[in-house]
Amino acid sequence: MQLNHTRLLNNLTQLAQFGKVETGVNRLSFTSEDRAARQWLVEQMREAGLDAEIDGIGNVYGRTRGVDTAVLIGSHTDSVPKGGWLDGAMGVLYGLEVARTRNESNTLPGLGVDVISFADEEGTYRALAGSLSFCGELSDVDIKDAKNMHGVSLTHALTEAGYAGQPRARIDPSRHLAYFEGHIEQGPRLEVEGQKIGLVTAIVGIRRSRITCTGQADHAGTTPMHLRKDAGAVLIRLCAELLNRFANAGSELSVWNLGHIVFEPGAGNVVPSLAQVLVEFRDPRPEVLDRLEAEINAAVAEFHGQQGVSIEVAHLLSIAPADMDAALVDTIEAATRQQAVPALRMPSGAGHDAMVLSRYVPTAMLFIPSIGGRSHDVAEDTSAEDICLGADILADTVALLARQKGLA
Amino acid sequence: MQLNHTRLLNNLTQLAQFGKVETGVNRLSFTSEDRAARQWLVEQMREAGLDAEIDGIGNVYGRTRGVDTAVLIGSHTDSVPKGGWLDGAMGVLYGLEVARTRNESNTLPGLGVDVISFADEEGTYRALAGSLSFCGELSDVDIKDAKNMHGVSLTHALTEAGYAGQPRARIDPSRHLAYFEGHIEQGPRLEVEGQKIGLVTAIVGIRRSRITCTGQADHAGTTPMHLRKDAGAVLIRLCAELLNRFANAGSELSVWNLGHIVFEPGAGNVVPSLAQVLVEFRDPRPEVLDRLEAEINAAVAEFHGQQGVSIEVAHLLSIAPADMDAALVDTIEAATRQQAVPALRMPSGAGHDAMVLSRYVPTAMLFIPSIGGRSHDVAEDTSAEDICLGADILADTVALLARQKGLA
Repeated sequence: MQLNHTRLLNNLTQLAQFGKVETGVNRLSFTSEDRAARQWLVEQMREAGLDAEIDGIGNVYGRTRGVDTAVLIGSHTDSVPKGGWLDGAMGVLYGLEVARTRNESNTLPGLGVDVISFADEEGTYRALAGSLSFCGELSDVDIKDAKNMHGVSLTHALTEAGYAGQPRARIDPSRHLAYFEGHIEQGPRLEVEGQKIGLVTAIVGIRRSRITCTGQADHAGTTPMHLRKDAGAVLIRLCAELLNRFANAGSELSVWNLGHIVFEPGAGNVVPSLAQVLVEFRDPRPEVLDRLEAEINAAVAEFHGQQGVSIEVAHLLSIAPADMDAALVDTIEAATRQQAVPALRMPSGAGHDAMVLSRYVPTAMLFIPSIGGRSHDVAEDTSAEDICLGADILADTVALLARQKGLA
Repeated sequence: MQLNHTRLLNNLTQLAQFGKVETGVNRLSFTSEDRAARQWLVEQMREAGLDAEIDGIGNVYGRTRGVDTAVLIGSHTDSVPKGGWLDGAMGVLYGLEVARTRNESNTLPGLGVDVISFADEEGTYRALAGSLSFCGELSDVDIKDAKNMHGVSLTHALTEAGYAGQPRARIDPSRHLAYFEGHIEQGPRLEVEGQKIGLVTAIVGIRRSRITCTGQADHAGTTPMHLRKDAGAVLIRLCAELLNRFANAGSELSVWNLGHIVFEPGAGNVVPSLAQVLVEFRDPRPEVLDRLEAEINAAVAEFHGQQGVSIEVAHLLSIAPADMDAALVDTIEAATRQQAVPALRMPSGAGHDAMVLSRYVPTAMLFIPSIGGRSHDVAEDTSAEDICLGADILADTVALLARQKGLA
């Protein structure tokens, strides 16, 4: 399969016109810009020879005709506010280009290429709504409960868009041999290490804990140090301890972030009565996540009660890691070797629709470099050369897989 | 001089009706409640036999007739929002009760008792405006520039109140032998240590610095730890270091507070690009304040550039400590010994009008206990017994001073 690079890049540029803002896109789920992009996409899929529809949750799903077996390739076309032009969009258009080339060139007669753009991956209403629906993990109650930050319900948005009432497309493990998702890395590793393709071995698990120190507000001039219950000072010491504990207990792939901190009442002349920090940590291995959570609990136990300050910890979020299919990762790697493209095995530090799909069909992802590691920002970009290289590796991977499965 | 305790307590209760809120008062400067309280006070002063006026900045000033020499006793009657009933008000009514008793009992013929309530000590428009004006430190430009948090100018407030255009009263060092201010402690020391009178040796100096760490916002999942410029992590370590350095470098009277901290953008999944802390520290000795400021500078120098994070420090505020007059402190102490009242030499950790007055006339303050150390809150309170004891010690001090100066 010889992809048409010019067409791929043109399609990317065309899609980026929907909601274009500066060098990025503002294409929040189910806005007029997002809906127009979906309409454009379903037409592109039909032109490419696919049976394509927008389903009841807004997924744009195109199926290859006349095959019993297919790979599924996709990602999402919605964006965060003032997001980048490639995040999600590129993975969908990789699928479109591979499917179109297959259909035009009459290659791989035994293996179809189905293409999908999952709705609301970014969670304007409900993160991963499209892939969860596609895999049967999104109930009617889930849909009813989902709201955006302005309180508009997902049901209302689906009705407005004309998607409500359409059947919801479902994955078919008897048809779908594999799910592939191409994506920008959204981090700096490939660029820094001079690699061209990231072979995603796992999508990291994410946990989030909130630590709250409660002391007593006092006049910061008239209250002697030894009579204070300074929630802020205890939190600072606890956070410094946590940074040390995480550095010791984490794996070489662990990341953690103390991203939000708040002191109340928050005045220079009042001893903080409350101090709170949000701790997020990620790792591809559940046992490492357990170890880091245990470090939080141990540090909290150590500091609880110091200086009359009580400490509570709430474990708010736990998303399990998702291993990618080892055989598929090997196949992508084989494709990179075939072309002598420098590639790196690495976890994905961000969540993706592939996380959901991996529970139902063999799933793999490939990353291409993000310039300066930037994403979720209009500054997000990747060179045309790298974009096309990623598409070629994906096409080669599909061809290799067809050969492996006797479907070429 | 035998004070009338019942009258003193009644006057306190009457004054607390102006702007009464729950068990405290809402008597922000130049509100109708504050103005009504000033009008009540000027009438009380006249009833007590003083020549009393409200001056051009709102100071209520009552002078003893027929004397060339007087002590000045006072404080302020404005409050913070939902403040306590004693903060300031008590010191003014101590002066009123001592002056009234002197005038009624025809004691101390050679030493008058002038009484003053300084305007806007709490800084609704301009902190210490009344005492600064009284001492000639508040210029017309200062008045013109002063605004409250809603943007209303002090000039407008003074005009509305009918004070604008009145002459501004001025301190007279040839008349004023001393300035005395009685005040609640606003802290827990007297209560905790079982003392009844705080002999204020100095009003602490206050300095305030803002430390700003600047790094880079990155995705907290996809950016490996070693490639981050985490302003938050650096600030946490710097703050922990500062807490240690202050504990080592401070005097036994030093206090410090890290009361406000902010991380930007402040999301659990974004590495903080900016982290800022407000550091406030107080001590009665300038050389200790210099030492603590040097510790900040040294810690900033140590952490600057770590993990690619740059650090800036801005020294925002520096109020010099004010020593109280040693001879006057001795005189108050002598009064407490005379009555066998347990008293403690201590600095004032909060600012007071006495800070300004001390630059022009011998000045001293006495504290009485605050229940639970509470102030700037409706919960602020002191037992009637302790209030009356403080007034008695002040009256005795005036009598002792008169004797010392041959004016009794």
